[in-house]
Amino acid sequence: MDTKPWEKYLGADDRAVLERGRFARRMGFGIRPAVVVIDAQRYMVGEEGNDQNWPSSCGAIGRSALKQIQRVVEQAQKSEVPCFFTTFELDSNGGDIGVYGRKRDLLDSDHWCLAGTVGAELVPELRPGKNDIAFVKKKPSGFHGTPLLGYLIDRKIDTVVVVGGATSNCIRATVFDSSSYNFRTIVPHEAVFDRIAVSHAISLFDMDRQFADVVSVADLLSYLRECDGK
Amino acid sequence: MDTKPWEKYLGADDRAVLERGRFARRMGFGIRPAVVVIDAQRYMVGEEGNDQNWPSSCGAIGRSALKQIQRVVEQAQKSEVPCFFTTFELDSNGGDIGVYGRKRDLLDSDHWCLAGTVGAELVPELRPGKNDIAFVKKKPSGFHGTPLLGYLIDRKIDTVVVVGGATSNCIRATVFDSSSYNFRTIVPHEAVFDRIAVSHAISLFDMDRQFADVVSVADLLSYLRECDGK
Amino acid sequence: MDTKPWEKYLGADDRAVLERGRFARRMGFGIRPAVVVIDAQRYMVGEEGNDQNWPSSCGAIGRSALKQIQRVVEQAQKSEVPCFFTTFELDSNGGDIGVYGRKRDLLDSDHWCLAGTVGAELVPELRPGKNDIAFVKKKPSGFHGTPLLGYLIDRKIDTVVVVGGATSNCIRATVFDSSSYNFRTIVPHEAVFDRIAVSHAISLFDMDRQFADVVSVADLLSYLRECDGK
Amino acid sequence: MDTKPWEKYLGADDRAVLERGRFARRMGFGIRPAVVVIDAQRYMVGEEGNDQNWPSSCGAIGRSALKQIQRVVEQAQKSEVPCFFTTFELDSNGGDIGVYGRKRDLLDSDHWCLAGTVGAELVPELRPGKNDIAFVKKKPSGFHGTPLLGYLIDRKIDTVVVVGGATSNCIRATVFDSSSYNFRTIVPHEAVFDRIAVSHAISLFDMDRQFADVVSVADLLSYLRECDGK
Repeated sequence: MDTKPWEKYLGADDRAVLERGRFARRMGFGIRPAVVVIDAQRYMVGEEGNDQNWPSSCGAIGRSALKQIQRVVEQAQKSEVPCFFTTFELDSNGGDIGVYGRKRDLLDSDHWCLAGTVGAELVPELRPGKNDIAFVKKKPSGFHGTPLLGYLIDRKIDTVVVVGGATSNCIRATVFDSSSYNFRTIVPHEAVFDRIAVSHAISLFDMDRQFADVVSVADLLSYLRECDGK
Repeated sequence: MDTKPWEKYLGADDRAVLERGRFARRMGFGIRPAVVVIDAQRYMVGEEGNDQNWPSSCGAIGRSALKQIQRVVEQAQKSEVPCFFTTFELDSNGGDIGVYGRKRDLLDSDHWCLAGTVGAELVPELRPGKNDIAFVKKKPSGFHGTPLLGYLIDRKIDTVVVVGGATSNCIRATVFDSSSYNFRTIVPHEAVFDRIAVSHAISLFDMDRQFADVVSVADLLSYLRECDGK
Repeated sequence: MDTKPWEKYLGADDRAVLERGRFARRMGFGIRPAVVVIDAQRYMVGEEGNDQNWPSSCGAIGRSALKQIQRVVEQAQKSEVPCFFTTFELDSNGGDIGVYGRKRDLLDSDHWCLAGTVGAELVPELRPGKNDIAFVKKKPSGFHGTPLLGYLIDRKIDTVVVVGGATSNCIRATVFDSSSYNFRTIVPHEAVFDRIAVSHAISLFDMDRQFADVVSVADLLSYLRECDGK
Repeated sequence: MDTKPWEKYLGADDRAVLERGRFARRMGFGIRPAVVVIDAQRYMVGEEGNDQNWPSSCGAIGRSALKQIQRVVEQAQKSEVPCFFTTFELDSNGGDIGVYGRKRDLLDSDHWCLAGTVGAELVPELRPGKNDIAFVKKKPSGFHGTPLLGYLIDRKIDTVVVVGGATSNCIRATVFDSSSYNFRTIVPHEAVFDRIAVSHAISLFDMDRQFADVVSVADLLSYLRECDGK
């Protein structure tokens, strides 16, 4: 990876702590990867020039990451690496929102994540292929209350690539679960995005230090190309 | 809460995003709390004047937070609020470390978290009481691969208070799971700690914004006192 | 319960074992119940006079139990006790069937459980009400890979009533999970059904002995009526 | 398998149902097995001539199965197939028993499953080897609230062999979870045991029909021998 987005936030003391604890070695790629695309939905990336009407849009940062996500998904589909697409959807009557409804207003908008609205749709740039599965989740992690884990075991996956958004919320929760289940977990940093720059950078730092490899999209694409035909 | 440790990291753009998405309302306390004490072990807080011999010690910051954790646990035990103590332990032969062993060296030290060493012990300042349970975990979240969830359901808990360390790793993973299972989730900010200052501050910010209430220890103690005798 | 369908299968030796181990006490009803309706779908109950064209139909036994399920759901909805309806659906391309596909042929029939077919539909006699949620599951247990657990915690449920089919498969798996999460778990025996008579009877026996209360529909309805207005 | 212990319980109608639904094909062995030994503890197999003093003993049936379990474990250890040993233990103060405490008396006996008693010990005939892990569970399934799933994923296991007891309770709950996570799941019928003969036979039947292969110990040993050196 050329640049580490978090370096500017660390001081000499922090580097000494990392050295002493011998953190941040490389997990490395395994031999059977899958790509998990988290919440690549319209409500997450909004609309150019109109983001003020998309209350949870990550704006230009989201749309830029989406181009990188497309590259990852295209190469994965070409190499017959399975892709799993989550979408986050809530019922408009609030029946399934749980305690999250206490932190956020349940927004009455077609541009948010309500089931059946345009906001909840997968972005049109991404389409599940013949080896892929899309499913709804109700919580940050792509594993929580979903069939994802069994899909990965069934396909003998050992390496989980996580892309989408937001870095500090759904990406991070998915990465926690993936590495806790002992999958090698890979985060290509240009293919994840967040509303808040410092949250994005520090979540990448925390994940790379303890339970995932943060890599460049270029390095990930090289690896996925090597998987072709295996 | 008097101070928000994350404010200095945010700019005007970030504040506009938060306003637009209507984040960070209060989850609020419920009526049946439990306290989950995460990894309050010797290896996490080291030894004054000798931290260089405790490879994962959080140093003075950890020892300071420990005093606040003691206050929380004492009031909880007095109010008959159940406390659950996790300890993170690994077998010295590496058999249970999983992919985490690829990110960290498995350190051959009695001052780390190896099962049977002094480092893995619960700190002597904290003792489980008659309503409490201690158990081992193998992954960041106190829920992952442990009986915690059933203990909470059995006691009809609706509010989970999370204390201990580290903020950006085990605290955050536990908070993700707790709020995903729809418990009101509370983080008293002086009673959690981290090796890295910016990771601590930004994890508190991310949690308070989306899936927990970050509160002061003083406010938490008031609440726990009110629970006495209920 | 007037009759225990399993008594005829037990001998004196079996009764001595039960006596020695002090099995089969009453779990009892709690104060906040929910009803979980498992796979009450067309493919499970077939069509009178035409069951040979519904490959997994439980036949007249299923249709008879359905009448009892209706009574339970109607009273629950009247008493504002939440009902959760699972449906078991598989993709026709086999992508989500996993190892189950090795035990069963993936049947190419509109009268089986393929997503989008008439067989996969909830039976028309049952309709989710305003407090209810319906969701798809991919495995026997209503908890496995679904959001059910969080829904129950969010509503402070302490008692889970399980109805539907089949007794020895999806009912039993759901009951295992429910009692393992420490919910009081109740099975009204006329409101569950199975293709095989001895499997039905012995599963009821095993559950009543160890991890659920098998009760009559009449006793359950009395309890649900008492919950009205609470 | 030479004999199917359940055949005598089935009638012509049952056989017609099985034929119509095309149940009970073979799942088959995969390429990376693990053995999960469920609750092979003293309290489960009692003592010859003294079973009346072991309240949950499965008696001679348990001790006979234990000899078969030994053969399976010995061959697995020789072939470097990992073995995972669960023990079921409860705190004597009842703090962790949950709703199970409502079905059973919490027995005040050193010959039951209380933590720290002789009854809770693994039987002396079985010893974890260098590739093996032993851990405590609190519920029927070996997966529920334990680290087992991550251990299997870390070792790229695709086939889970389940032995121990009791067939209708902990074996069956473990088999449900194993096949729901999409592991090929194998039950050698002479190496599982139950207190109640009909519960044993019908649980084998139900599992073989839907979510596991019930095989003979002889066939399993042939397979494990073939795994040697792979």
